Amino acid sequence: MGGDFAPQATLLGAREALDAWPELFLCLVGDEAIIHPALKKYGFAPGLLARIEVVHASQTVVMEDKATCILKLKKDSSIRVAAKLVRDGRAEGVVSMGHTGAAMVASSLVIGKLEGVDRPALASVMPNMKGGPTVLLDVGANVDSRAEHIAQFAVMGSVYAEEVLGIERPRVGILSVGEEDGKGTGVTKEASAMLREMGIRFEGNAEGRDIWNGNFEVIACDGFVGNVVLKSSEALAEGIIGGLRDSFMESALTKFAGLLAKPAMKRFKKKLDYAEYGGAPLLGVKGVSIIGHGRSDARAVRNAIRAALRAAEHRLNERIQERVALLLPQD
Amino acid sequence: MGGDFAPQATLLGAREALDAWPELFLCLVGDEAIIHPALKKYGFAPGLLARIEVVHASQTVVMEDKATCILKLKKDSSIRVAAKLVRDGRAEGVVSMGHTGAAMVASSLVIGKLEGVDRPALASVMPNMKGGPTVLLDVGANVDSRAEHIAQFAVMGSVYAEEVLGIERPRVGILSVGEEDGKGTGVTKEASAMLREMGIRFEGNAEGRDIWNGNFEVIACDGFVGNVVLKSSEALAEGIIGGLRDSFMESALTKFAGLLAKPAMKRFKKKLDYAEYGGAPLLGVKGVSIIGHGRSDARAVRNAIRAALRAAEHRLNERIQERVALLLPQD
Repeated sequence: MGGDFAPQATLLGAREALDAWPELFLCLVGDEAIIHPALKKYGFAPGLLARIEVVHASQTVVMEDKATCILKLKKDSSIRVAAKLVRDGRAEGVVSMGHTGAAMVASSLVIGKLEGVDRPALASVMPNMKGGPTVLLDVGANVDSRAEHIAQFAVMGSVYAEEVLGIERPRVGILSVGEEDGKGTGVTKEASAMLREMGIRFEGNAEGRDIWNGNFEVIACDGFVGNVVLKSSEALAEGIIGGLRDSFMESALTKFAGLLAKPAMKRFKKKLDYAEYGGAPLLGVKGVSIIGHGRSDARAVRNAIRAALRAAEHRLNERIQERVALLLPQD
Repeated sequence: MGGDFAPQATLLGAREALDAWPELFLCLVGDEAIIHPALKKYGFAPGLLARIEVVHASQTVVMEDKATCILKLKKDSSIRVAAKLVRDGRAEGVVSMGHTGAAMVASSLVIGKLEGVDRPALASVMPNMKGGPTVLLDVGANVDSRAEHIAQFAVMGSVYAEEVLGIERPRVGILSVGEEDGKGTGVTKEASAMLREMGIRFEGNAEGRDIWNGNFEVIACDGFVGNVVLKSSEALAEGIIGGLRDSFMESALTKFAGLLAKPAMKRFKKKLDYAEYGGAPLLGVKGVSIIGHGRSDARAVRNAIRAALRAAEHRLNERIQERVALLLPQD
């Protein structure tokens, strides 16, 4: 029920996903008085309907709600009901385009933390300038992370990049203020020391520019820094692209130029499109949780479902537990 | 001697500045065997030469040097000699386009800290989407800042925005992960509490997007976060603009479109041009220190000199000391 274009984008994305992956079965959680007519309206074929279960939830979390509203005020909200399906083993993962905070609370508290993980981390999968993805985590769940938390983020991100994004031996870095080992805080240096002897491809410090240049596939950081960088980057990219668009509206001549250049600019914008990677996984919960952007269109919803499906099929959490356990015997 | 285009950009910028501000007197610090012929080559008029003193320095810090090289290995480097002029009262400020770290070390250790300031902070003056400047500090000098440091950064940034950038009652924020007062770390909350009762226009938490949207003129943060955001933003902006440029090179048609749109795009790029605001001031040292981008052209050098001139004329440091002193009686 969540997201700016629900239920249309959600349902059309669900249909695309069912079409694409025959092994997929979906529970659609929300107001059945809305969902059933919509399924008809969008013409879901009987073959697809057979792989859908509609699970009723009487409430919806809206943007104005607090993230914790699902704990008391909105116990029958679609995100909480969906999380319960995962907790009870009726679903392997939950995908939401709604309230990010509520989805994080539902995933962390209703589904629960994965054993061996201290703090779940929200991972943003961002398109880099080499045309591939860079996973930045944590981007919002944790402020004041300790070294062992950041080390766990790095390990979880590495497993996600490998199993879900299909990157072989992803290069992993710790976000810091310089390339050299000596640069950073006590926390980043300690986290680096923990990661040196792990099985992952740890390549030391990453700098701010490395988020975009494609030199790393995974960059781990405290949730405060990650959140600030993510929000700052979204605003900067929108500002630049919007400003350029405005500059094409200046005169008839520039409008004509804009028309000619449109297809090429569209191709470039697609390269930068986060929707390709299908939302942000909340890593470290006992189940799969993918949190999409509120502005997700059908393709973004489809790709978020694909991410959840791959995470389940590749047994992401087992892989994370195996790797995180190796971090434990530090002293 | 520093910067990618020295001595040409430095000297041409110096000439523009001398032309523009008759009250300005410049010491040009560096290898006199290079500077004297260059002054001739660029045709400095006798009237301008009368307002120039060439101060010889036998060494130059290069990019490969460590920031601390000026303390022992390169005691006669141009940046150190220039800082000594300020320490000894022979100049009011130093402007450098060279090695940022070396300029910070020279300013902090040779010129020294301003009384009442715990840590000098590097402030980046960035163009926001409303067409004005936003001052982000600290962007590189301090990791692991305590609350009182961040509060001091906020106060120093506010005074700089007012006195040098000419913004009346600049809006000041503390960078955090949400607008609400409750969002952030212990450090950001404590810093906010310190700023509430000050004479500055403190408006609480700023988010990552507020760096660009023009809702704040000054945003204070720990140097770790500021440095990561700055480097990430530079890379992202370059990536987007470069990617769009490439997409105009795809075909004869798009090349033609690019040609038509060039003037409008140039006007937009100028809006985003950091060179307008003339480099990053290192605030909290006993004198003025402006550190320009290595890629500064003559206009950027001129504007960096203008920033130093205004800071000296407006008695920036006296204003900073008055305001920072009000922060002290906290308990």
